[in-house]
Amino acid sequence: MNKNQRGKLLIFALGGLDEIGKNMYVVQYGNDIVVIDAGLKFPEEDMLGIDIVIPDISYLVENQEKVRGIILTHGHEDHIGGLPYILKQLKVPIYATKLTMGLIEHKLKEAHILNEVKRYIISNQSEITLGSMKATFFNTNHSIPDSVGVCVQTPEGAVVHTGDFKFDMTPVNGHLADMHKMAEIGKKGVLCLLSDSTNAERSGFTGSESTVGEGIQEVFRKAKQRVIVATFASNIHRIQQVVDACHIYGRKLAVVGRSMVNVVNIASELGYLNIPKDLLIEPDDINRLPAHKVAVISTGSQGESMSALNRMANASHRKVEILPGDTVIIAATPIPGNEKMIGRIVNQLFRIGADVVYSTTSHVHVSGHGSQEDLKLMLNLIKPRYFIPIHGEYRMLLAHAQLAESVGVRPENIFICDNGDSLEISNGKARYGPKISTGKVLIDGLGVGDVGNIVLRDRKLLSQDGILVVVVTLSKTNGTILSGPDIISRGFVYVRESEQLLDDATQVVNQTMERCMKEQVSEWASLKTSIRDSLSKFLYERTRRRPMILPIIMEV
Amino acid sequence: MNKNQRGKLLIFALGGLDEIGKNMYVVQYGNDIVVIDAGLKFPEEDMLGIDIVIPDISYLVENQEKVRGIILTHGHEDHIGGLPYILKQLKVPIYATKLTMGLIEHKLKEAHILNEVKRYIISNQSEITLGSMKATFFNTNHSIPDSVGVCVQTPEGAVVHTGDFKFDMTPVNGHLADMHKMAEIGKKGVLCLLSDSTNAERSGFTGSESTVGEGIQEVFRKAKQRVIVATFASNIHRIQQVVDACHIYGRKLAVVGRSMVNVVNIASELGYLNIPKDLLIEPDDINRLPAHKVAVISTGSQGESMSALNRMANASHRKVEILPGDTVIIAATPIPGNEKMIGRIVNQLFRIGADVVYSTTSHVHVSGHGSQEDLKLMLNLIKPRYFIPIHGEYRMLLAHAQLAESVGVRPENIFICDNGDSLEISNGKARYGPKISTGKVLIDGLGVGDVGNIVLRDRKLLSQDGILVVVVTLSKTNGTILSGPDIISRGFVYVRESEQLLDDATQVVNQTMERCMKEQVSEWASLKTSIRDSLSKFLYERTRRRPMILPIIMEV
Repeated sequence: MNKNQRGKLLIFALGGLDEIGKNMYVVQYGNDIVVIDAGLKFPEEDMLGIDIVIPDISYLVENQEKVRGIILTHGHEDHIGGLPYILKQLKVPIYATKLTMGLIEHKLKEAHILNEVKRYIISNQSEITLGSMKATFFNTNHSIPDSVGVCVQTPEGAVVHTGDFKFDMTPVNGHLADMHKMAEIGKKGVLCLLSDSTNAERSGFTGSESTVGEGIQEVFRKAKQRVIVATFASNIHRIQQVVDACHIYGRKLAVVGRSMVNVVNIASELGYLNIPKDLLIEPDDINRLPAHKVAVISTGSQGESMSALNRMANASHRKVEILPGDTVIIAATPIPGNEKMIGRIVNQLFRIGADVVYSTTSHVHVSGHGSQEDLKLMLNLIKPRYFIPIHGEYRMLLAHAQLAESVGVRPENIFICDNGDSLEISNGKARYGPKISTGKVLIDGLGVGDVGNIVLRDRKLLSQDGILVVVVTLSKTNGTILSGPDIISRGFVYVRESEQLLDDATQVVNQTMERCMKEQVSEWASLKTSIRDSLSKFLYERTRRRPMILPIIMEV
Repeated sequence: MNKNQRGKLLIFALGGLDEIGKNMYVVQYGNDIVVIDAGLKFPEEDMLGIDIVIPDISYLVENQEKVRGIILTHGHEDHIGGLPYILKQLKVPIYATKLTMGLIEHKLKEAHILNEVKRYIISNQSEITLGSMKATFFNTNHSIPDSVGVCVQTPEGAVVHTGDFKFDMTPVNGHLADMHKMAEIGKKGVLCLLSDSTNAERSGFTGSESTVGEGIQEVFRKAKQRVIVATFASNIHRIQQVVDACHIYGRKLAVVGRSMVNVVNIASELGYLNIPKDLLIEPDDINRLPAHKVAVISTGSQGESMSALNRMANASHRKVEILPGDTVIIAATPIPGNEKMIGRIVNQLFRIGADVVYSTTSHVHVSGHGSQEDLKLMLNLIKPRYFIPIHGEYRMLLAHAQLAESVGVRPENIFICDNGDSLEISNGKARYGPKISTGKVLIDGLGVGDVGNIVLRDRKLLSQDGILVVVVTLSKTNGTILSGPDIISRGFVYVRESEQLLDDATQVVNQTMERCMKEQVSEWASLKTSIRDSLSKFLYERTRRRPMILPIIMEV
């Protein structure tokens, strides 16, 4: 591939297209590869037992000597969460802003690879050289501070990647997005724009994070007892606004939940959170103060069963219990798939007698992703010749493409791609280039990629109707049955109430074996197949279930 | 219990409280029991392999001779879906309106019990005697025709059950709710109201079904090729509006999906659907007509994987394939938990090149349940002394209770109950009565209630990390190993890539058995426990997974 690609620009995604999660985009010019983001994704509901999913980076591993570095646009899991796995295979430098790097370093330390990785802090003032390419950065607004977009200057022209963004005209920390810099980049001419499509189906502008501060203060003002706020740990602006509300209304704040404590520590240390002295208290001290003098900030806004909020709601948290009269703010909207879990916590909180403020009924959350007008503003500032909508499911990418067309990008210059589709640009002309091999790597415990379709199919089968193991010991000399057949079942029927069924099933196996012996079936494989078939048929007729059947033949 | 309850009124739910689904409410006066509704519920995500869930009716079975009948308020699954199972255990008459009975009869026929069940058609003109009680009915508006509320006149006073309802001021079939009758009932005095809480958290009035007709016609007007409408099969008003749109815009209509065909047949036969002659075509004939002359109505609005819509979207439907340029209307909102499945179908349809109209972007669906203003109107018409919010999760019941208070029901007269909690009223005074035993019965294939917590726990375990079966054959005479240990795994690791791990695991079992033999462990149970413990520890250290381990010892 080397020769062909000299003088050619390739742009492609290894993750992030037609999905939400595992973002990883690649800009390659000749022998130089720049990677933008290295995220993880949470498993789909059919990936039973899987912990997380990361992109398949075999292309990068094969071309390791060409990879000049990985740029991380911001500190969310779907952008940095794959690093601990990916950097074990790929020895390349990483570039990130101060807060993003702080969050990454915590991860790399836990993975015991911190010292092996070359790390460079960047800012909107940096210019970094990556082989034949140079990268500069512009600040954006998002639901985590220190988010940037990237402008990769290639010999073919500028490639701009927005990162995740919205335009917040009244940002909590006062830092507007670098609109002037974006305008300047746009003015100089941009070859290709890759832009965040998450909210491309939503009309209007996304609201300012500071409106959430008002919503939270409103709740604090009315609350008679403790206030518990659950939000994403990484939303430092929102944590700041809870801190501010505590300061205004004279409450002390306890931080609970492992990742919340971790983020508050890192962000405070690096100067991204401004917490008045003596405002924080330890969870142990909550009960020593009057209820109206206390607030709690916690993880669990997505209803996660092991989260602090869920444990507090179910009186299984070691230190904090939610009591009647407490006010709980769930400052988040459900990520699709989490609606039922959140609903369950809300029910439980109301049952306790808490007052619950959640997004369907109030103003305690806004998205960090730009809506249609934000997206059009970005398109109009950058004015790209070519456009690739990224970071979204197909319908979002399509909606974003339509927005681009509406602001004047020529339809033939808009490319809706899949992961692995490459856009090849040479002499200013773009077309689909070679297909890059990619996919998903499933992580289950310590195993990276050792669970594939067969294992998942088996887990699915087992989860539906359980398993029946049929064991029989045969004589090596004459093939007679020495012991068994024994049937052991798990996840099929409750054995004590189904003795008759299992006795009958044993009879079916006996008859099958007799028949096989008469017919002088000597191959174990055929014998096993016969047992499996006859037993499966019998069980389906009797129960309309199809458990996995595992015949085992021992020979003595 | 008999004596105590003579002269006492008991009201309780066997299903439907703090949940959506399996509605079943009971009014008991002395030796007379009236049941209202007998619904099913779809399984929660932790009920692996379960098909449906019905209420535990052991109380009714024990008191069979007292049960005077089951009244069905309307034909939705969460109100009638339990009947085929419940009527096998409970030989009692059922009462339903014409359409509701038509849908029930179809179910009973499939369950081969139609002829065993005494069935009575009711209307808003009926008065039926149920022991010491009398029931009359009032028409309501809901997302299925022929829905009624029930007024049970007991010696203690009137108990009103609303069924599912909203107030539709411009109903599709012209039949307003019986507001005058409700007013009359209210004027005579109502002891207790049980009312639908589904949308108690939503402000305002729920929109009229006829606004959906306008939305659908708008889409038909613009569509250039075929129009495919997916909606709930039971929403006959909506089917009528699709029929009307076809008639207006000169399209023929094909009906696809088993339950859609079934409902269209029943509703047409009974006169609830008015379909112009020659408007319907067979799915086979779709391709014989120009695309702009055809529409399709289909099941699958919840993204169900086996539904007609999903199969049409994935080109796996036998007769209809969705093509580029077709317009698909998904006339429903996701039931919580179905968001991702629907999102997947929408992505797939856009990918094909279809235009997709779905609820987040247009006006092709309204709820069949009343919002806060509808609920207040019902409360004000009925003017009950006591109030029990029903049909909803806890937070909905709570919101409904607050609405009742806001229109003047005294807080001490509002009872938020759980399934099995009974309200006992005698001499006009209400208090919590005896707890009625109830719960959920899981149906898996032909098994009714044979899957319990142990089986579900095993399925959950199996689904996460799979299973390892360890088999060894021992000598009866001296306990030496004659064959094995053999390890067979399913759903754990992909065996070909993990031979070393499984070899090492076999070594661990061998060592454990040697140790046990040295220590003269002779009990199989202890030997099995030792194998399970050592293998589990080994596998967790090596993989951080905890598969189920099933040691099997054969003796020869």
